[in-house]
Amino acid sequence: MNNSDQPLWDWTLRRIRKIWPLGDSGKLKNVVDPELPESDVQKLRNKINACLEARGGEMSARSRAAELGEAYLVLSPLGRRRFLELLAREYDVDNEAIEKAIEDRRTSDAPEQNRKATSRLRQLLEPPRTRLLRQFNELQEGVKFLVDLRSELMGWAQKDPELKALDQDVYGLLASWFDIGFLDLQQITWKTPAALLEKLIEYEAVHAIRSWDDLKNRLGDDRCCFAFFHPRMPDEPLIFVEVALVNGISTSIHELLDEKAPVGNPKKADTAIFYSISNCQTGLAGVSFGNFLIKRVVSALTAKLPNLKTFSTLSPIPGFMKWLQNEADELQLSERERLVLDLIKNPIPDQPGLLEMLRSKNGTHEEEARSLFQPGLLRLGARYLVTAKRGKQASDRVAHFHLSNGARIEQINWAADLSEKGLQQSAGLMVNYLYKLPDIEKNHEAYSGHGEITTSSAVRKLL
Amino acid sequence: MNNSDQPLWDWTLRRIRKIWPLGDSGKLKNVVDPELPESDVQKLRNKINACLEARGGEMSARSRAAELGEAYLVLSPLGRRRFLELLAREYDVDNEAIEKAIEDRRTSDAPEQNRKATSRLRQLLEPPRTRLLRQFNELQEGVKFLVDLRSELMGWAQKDPELKALDQDVYGLLASWFDIGFLDLQQITWKTPAALLEKLIEYEAVHAIRSWDDLKNRLGDDRCCFAFFHPRMPDEPLIFVEVALVNGISTSIHELLDEKAPVGNPKKADTAIFYSISNCQTGLAGVSFGNFLIKRVVSALTAKLPNLKTFSTLSPIPGFMKWLQNEADELQLSERERLVLDLIKNPIPDQPGLLEMLRSKNGTHEEEARSLFQPGLLRLGARYLVTAKRGKQASDRVAHFHLSNGARIEQINWAADLSEKGLQQSAGLMVNYLYKLPDIEKNHEAYSGHGEITTSSAVRKLL
Amino acid sequence: MNNSDQPLWDWTLRRIRKIWPLGDSGKLKNVVDPELPESDVQKLRNKINACLEARGGEMSARSRAAELGEAYLVLSPLGRRRFLELLAREYDVDNEAIEKAIEDRRTSDAPEQNRKATSRLRQLLEPPRTRLLRQFNELQEGVKFLVDLRSELMGWAQKDPELKALDQDVYGLLASWFDIGFLDLQQITWKTPAALLEKLIEYEAVHAIRSWDDLKNRLGDDRCCFAFFHPRMPDEPLIFVEVALVNGISTSIHELLDEKAPVGNPKKADTAIFYSISNCQTGLAGVSFGNFLIKRVVSALTAKLPNLKTFSTLSPIPGFMKWLQNEADELQLSERERLVLDLIKNPIPDQPGLLEMLRSKNGTHEEEARSLFQPGLLRLGARYLVTAKRGKQASDRVAHFHLSNGARIEQINWAADLSEKGLQQSAGLMVNYLYKLPDIEKNHEAYSGHGEITTSSAVRKLL
Amino acid sequence: MNNSDQPLWDWTLRRIRKIWPLGDSGKLKNVVDPELPESDVQKLRNKINACLEARGGEMSARSRAAELGEAYLVLSPLGRRRFLELLAREYDVDNEAIEKAIEDRRTSDAPEQNRKATSRLRQLLEPPRTRLLRQFNELQEGVKFLVDLRSELMGWAQKDPELKALDQDVYGLLASWFDIGFLDLQQITWKTPAALLEKLIEYEAVHAIRSWDDLKNRLGDDRCCFAFFHPRMPDEPLIFVEVALVNGISTSIHELLDEKAPVGNPKKADTAIFYSISNCQTGLAGVSFGNFLIKRVVSALTAKLPNLKTFSTLSPIPGFMKWLQNEADELQLSERERLVLDLIKNPIPDQPGLLEMLRSKNGTHEEEARSLFQPGLLRLGARYLVTAKRGKQASDRVAHFHLSNGARIEQINWAADLSEKGLQQSAGLMVNYLYKLPDIEKNHEAYSGHGEITTSSAVRKLL
Repeated sequence: MNNSDQPLWDWTLRRIRKIWPLGDSGKLKNVVDPELPESDVQKLRNKINACLEARGGEMSARSRAAELGEAYLVLSPLGRRRFLELLAREYDVDNEAIEKAIEDRRTSDAPEQNRKATSRLRQLLEPPRTRLLRQFNELQEGVKFLVDLRSELMGWAQKDPELKALDQDVYGLLASWFDIGFLDLQQITWKTPAALLEKLIEYEAVHAIRSWDDLKNRLGDDRCCFAFFHPRMPDEPLIFVEVALVNGISTSIHELLDEKAPVGNPKKADTAIFYSISNCQTGLAGVSFGNFLIKRVVSALTAKLPNLKTFSTLSPIPGFMKWLQNEADELQLSERERLVLDLIKNPIPDQPGLLEMLRSKNGTHEEEARSLFQPGLLRLGARYLVTAKRGKQASDRVAHFHLSNGARIEQINWAADLSEKGLQQSAGLMVNYLYKLPDIEKNHEAYSGHGEITTSSAVRKLL
Repeated sequence: MNNSDQPLWDWTLRRIRKIWPLGDSGKLKNVVDPELPESDVQKLRNKINACLEARGGEMSARSRAAELGEAYLVLSPLGRRRFLELLAREYDVDNEAIEKAIEDRRTSDAPEQNRKATSRLRQLLEPPRTRLLRQFNELQEGVKFLVDLRSELMGWAQKDPELKALDQDVYGLLASWFDIGFLDLQQITWKTPAALLEKLIEYEAVHAIRSWDDLKNRLGDDRCCFAFFHPRMPDEPLIFVEVALVNGISTSIHELLDEKAPVGNPKKADTAIFYSISNCQTGLAGVSFGNFLIKRVVSALTAKLPNLKTFSTLSPIPGFMKWLQNEADELQLSERERLVLDLIKNPIPDQPGLLEMLRSKNGTHEEEARSLFQPGLLRLGARYLVTAKRGKQASDRVAHFHLSNGARIEQINWAADLSEKGLQQSAGLMVNYLYKLPDIEKNHEAYSGHGEITTSSAVRKLL
Repeated sequence: MNNSDQPLWDWTLRRIRKIWPLGDSGKLKNVVDPELPESDVQKLRNKINACLEARGGEMSARSRAAELGEAYLVLSPLGRRRFLELLAREYDVDNEAIEKAIEDRRTSDAPEQNRKATSRLRQLLEPPRTRLLRQFNELQEGVKFLVDLRSELMGWAQKDPELKALDQDVYGLLASWFDIGFLDLQQITWKTPAALLEKLIEYEAVHAIRSWDDLKNRLGDDRCCFAFFHPRMPDEPLIFVEVALVNGISTSIHELLDEKAPVGNPKKADTAIFYSISNCQTGLAGVSFGNFLIKRVVSALTAKLPNLKTFSTLSPIPGFMKWLQNEADELQLSERERLVLDLIKNPIPDQPGLLEMLRSKNGTHEEEARSLFQPGLLRLGARYLVTAKRGKQASDRVAHFHLSNGARIEQINWAADLSEKGLQQSAGLMVNYLYKLPDIEKNHEAYSGHGEITTSSAVRKLL
Repeated sequence: MNNSDQPLWDWTLRRIRKIWPLGDSGKLKNVVDPELPESDVQKLRNKINACLEARGGEMSARSRAAELGEAYLVLSPLGRRRFLELLAREYDVDNEAIEKAIEDRRTSDAPEQNRKATSRLRQLLEPPRTRLLRQFNELQEGVKFLVDLRSELMGWAQKDPELKALDQDVYGLLASWFDIGFLDLQQITWKTPAALLEKLIEYEAVHAIRSWDDLKNRLGDDRCCFAFFHPRMPDEPLIFVEVALVNGISTSIHELLDEKAPVGNPKKADTAIFYSISNCQTGLAGVSFGNFLIKRVVSALTAKLPNLKTFSTLSPIPGFMKWLQNEADELQLSERERLVLDLIKNPIPDQPGLLEMLRSKNGTHEEEARSLFQPGLLRLGARYLVTAKRGKQASDRVAHFHLSNGARIEQINWAADLSEKGLQQSAGLMVNYLYKLPDIEKNHEAYSGHGEITTSSAVRKLL
């Protein structure tokens, strides 16, 4: 029988990263001005140098890096930019040393010697600051720290080539840390901690989550939501997808988001509709997860719900209206197409435009709009998706994403998203991209290799 | 009220990494001969090329890499070596492309252009096989896969420079994956799953764990054990340390390992003795954790048990006897030292040698041995630790480890480890290295910079 | 290295209670009319008898009980009432057998024999239906089933003595199942699953939670919330308390519920304010948790936050206004008291009443109201709390709860709750009950034994 | 970004049961002599009375009960017995009050009044000490406390009717706490904490676990082990069963316990053999779990492994040899039976007896023994199981257990357990009891109602 003490030794230390206590007093963050005037930069320089030389041992170097990170967090935006410029300018590669290493390599003939020289050269080509960036993971939330640092850096880097180079270093590090093989796929349900659910609301980028009730509906029994997580950022989703489990391919987002619709039985569903995919971390721009997410979710769903046969998206066409306005004119248009285009580009004064007709809540104009414009608009939509290109790639970024994943264009849906955003961007159209498992590789190769876009016969008929 | 179904959607997908189903039939592992004759190598080559070109998309590339990994696992040692030689010889850097990139870099004057050329050069210096190695993490236990692959590769690499270069690539990848910032510190107790405890028994390298009772004693209330884990290898410790919580510095390993000794109250202990540190993964040779482990454990213990004031090891001196046999002769020895050395090097026939006297269980010779030999042996021990060097480093590998961590040599203990191994390697001596927090950086700098070894006054007196 | 199968045997069966498959076909729930006409009652009777006789073994009896429970869940309210009446009327104690057991007992002189007769009598005094009620826990959420059953039964029982007796049986069972010793105290935070947090919103009975933002504020760093749970109802709180960690005793609920107020540092707080306690399960009426909850939370907080010195409530005075309207007249009132009472009972036409003046958002009348009415209202409040009694108990139910827990009346606060409910029930007053640890037993004894109410000197001065 | 503090409020309080600090100083356990002389009994009496009167409130009563429990734990066996005698003698029912309540009941004619009197009588029939026993669950491991208390009490109770009555009270309480509906079924694997696995070794009662290797074999892929747990005793199994997943019914325990046998594929197994069931808690004698355990495990296995078709035991026949020695003589025996019985009862001097022949490791006598004795011994075994009765029950306790669960006697196996225990108790025989799902209820009814034992045709042929 125990005494009343709790077990002394039952504690888990996962994620505890106590900073090793250094001898020197005065936390850096307390002695640096947030604006980081030149007079304070020297303090950073000293600390950085101590980190890079691993002075006092690697553990101490990491503690110092953590101190630098803490100091960074209390700086103003100006101060942070100065900090990054310091890294970008003073801790880049050493060109002289590189020249010398190239020379050494040229003159070392013996294979072993040559190999060493090559290896040495490779090391020199990695800027020293990369080492410091890596040491930041000593911070308690060091991985998130670097993601957020990059999120800000990316803006500044656009006009500053040196910061751009630093951004490349950060990107390289993050790309290796966030290798897909290290990520966890997790399902998110209504039983997930509120602190995490709150982030879905924040990060949802396609169909805004209007309230906790809306969110709860998206996590109901006939829905599911999956996200990737990094083991060192367990409270932050990287990307998430919302899926509806239905019968037959959904053709309107409003049905899916209707909080009052009856809840279906997921075990009887034959179709999974991926209706929203959102990247969550700006700082991970360029690291791609979406392709993996869809395919892992397909695998997971197939294993759990063997009745599912069809995997499709219900997607916006975000570039459609802009293309209509600016580029469609150059095409040879049918009469019906011309009608639609004219109405969009030159609305008749005092008459409802196309979007108004669609928008009309009470359906006054719905039938009228449908009979007048549906054929023309659908055909224009199909032409946009299939023919509008940048080089070999589809112009539309959502189309490009799914096509390069190996999906095909299955169906274009009239009046499928009548939200303001849906009207303004896509004239209310939505498209289903179909992930047909046996064809995915073939479709991917055709698209990635030759820019060939696979479509259903229905879409081909439209064209 | 629920019906009798279990919640359909409550499943966690952490660590599920289903391989994406590929179109082609016939798992590679079923069509390759375990010996990997030349006729089968081409199959690998095709698959490897498909991986490196990310044919069919990155997800498919990873699936193929996983297939390659599965095939590797069913090969014989000879087959595995051939696989690795294939990687080493055919998937190294492209020297011609490197020469061209160097030339490009030389001729690009504009900073932006120069930067790009430098970046391009850096990419070319990374052998293509590294990409494949990284893709192996698609395997369900892909991280462990690579660790084990290297464990075997290291042996072959010693005599084959090309395999050596491959080993360097694998090492580089593992060093980045096993960055200390990604590891979890966990306490191991008697409540830990048996499947994990079993591994402590297997991996313990200093004082062998003789039985589950011995293990239980090492996890008792006045003991603790900590290990580092990688989030992708949760069932495999990387390194672990065993600590005794006692009063005053321990001078004999036998007290600590005595299963019948009464259990102390850890809350009243003033001293933590680190009496065993074992690396667990041969394939991670060169990736250093020990330094961090000790310091994180000190931080964790300090937070939980504020009465702890002293942190010390009780360590073997594994190189001592070898040094006595081979090198001590060259020193100027006192009479007592000479006595000991003679007895060890030239035991008198039909008389018990020094080790026999120590070994005698019933203590017949103990007092005799102590009075005759203790002073000489302790002094020899101190001289070995302090003066035997390879360059600036202490000869003794355990001494080198703790000294470079910033510890000092505190005390040398007579008859402290009378196990066969303790006698054969260390003549029964053990040493306490003291981790005195405020001095650690200073000691580290003195030792790493100048090879200066810090000692206690007691040790200095011995000298 | 594993193969790609997931570990076959890693499943936890906690809370799986598969119903043992019975031979007979046709689930009861599918063959019973929801209204439970007399013709269907016989089906239940058979099943109940089979349960009570444990026909086919105890496991089968439980399966049948589960079937009965499932059938109950699909009945209409009328059907459910008929079901309960069946239990109440036909499965009560057997009076004849009791008479006989009493007689047996009387005539058995030998102690052993007498003991047996007594034991037999005790068994007979427990109605057979109790056994069935207990067997319902075979249902997957059988404990919640019985709690909900009682919640409905209580209403019907008020006017039906037989149902009242059944209610007593259910109560007895629940009281033993929900013994405080079996409950878990858990903290609820913003990281708690949303599905549980949602229930706080539903169950909060004192200061309604207006939104998820309001809820988040109540779970901030300077707040905490604790609830009791039953291990077989892990998704349902039984009772919860909301605590603010502040400096000094809080005198207004509005400060505490202000979502925009800065977040304090809980480590520096010296006072814990219990500002809301809500029972969650109607069906557990009569089972008391509140007393334990407060004291366990005090223990838990003290252990975590040693700076906390004061434990107090900020409580409504729900019976105050009713008492003012109906009973205060009988007292001898001071002039200021009379002024207040008159204004409340006979508001002057076309002039703002007391509550209107308090309610005025822009503070127009605040100072005026304060100078005119504060002294009188506070004194009336004190008199109500201290002198209004039912027998020895304080009339006010919140006062009775805290006083019988051993708290004392510390302070009465003017304009402390200006919500509509606060005005209508308590004329805007709130009261602090102070839990002073060394005095709790003494206070409890004085109040429970003699009806003596302990007050602070400030309250005594008011009187 | 967080600061370096760990989240302050992330703590779980499950199972924390801090004792409420009482005013009085001097823990009872420190002021009571372990032998509990009469002079100290009064201290207990005071404390017990305070508990029963809930002096200072129910929370204080529980704290006092916990103090009493702690004091109990430091008493000597003699002291503990005196404590229990105090409870047994002074805190039994109040006979006078009972008489009065019986009289009240007799004279109360109105149904309502009568009901109250009955209820009052029921309360009086529960001894006051039961309340104290219940309050002990305030101890940190209060449930285990009471189980262990009863384990000791049961021994003393056999000869002391008053202690026997106390034991009945404790039993009643435990039976309600350990109602099957509150228990968790959990699988135990090699990944279970060692601290729990250790208890399997301790509690295994049928085929002793010889070592951790033996244990690991019993938890291999083609095995499984399930146990019931109480939520308040999570570290203590109540009962566990070991199951082998094989093809065809196992006929020898040695195959199952062979650590070197190849591991089968559980997914291909068609038969589950329950080869060991052990009760773990002496103090729960009389509370039956075994019946439920087998059937829940059958349900769980069926759900996970749909290929399983046959569920059978491989069981010892513990009363067989004793019956042979003492009772078989009275039967009419065939020649072959007589041969066996003679050899067992009157071994021929200087010749190997039956058991020796079976025991012979090298198989010298195996064939000989088989041809001579197998038919007779098997028939005797069958007759013992089917005809040896105590009243309607099978004499053999293992047989009675499985038959009353609804199993049938399927097959009797020669030389199936040649361990010393197997030979001494069962002459090396083992029996398979078959759980045929559709027949279980019928078999149970036949056996429980009329003592009819169901057998396979093979067993009937033996007879």
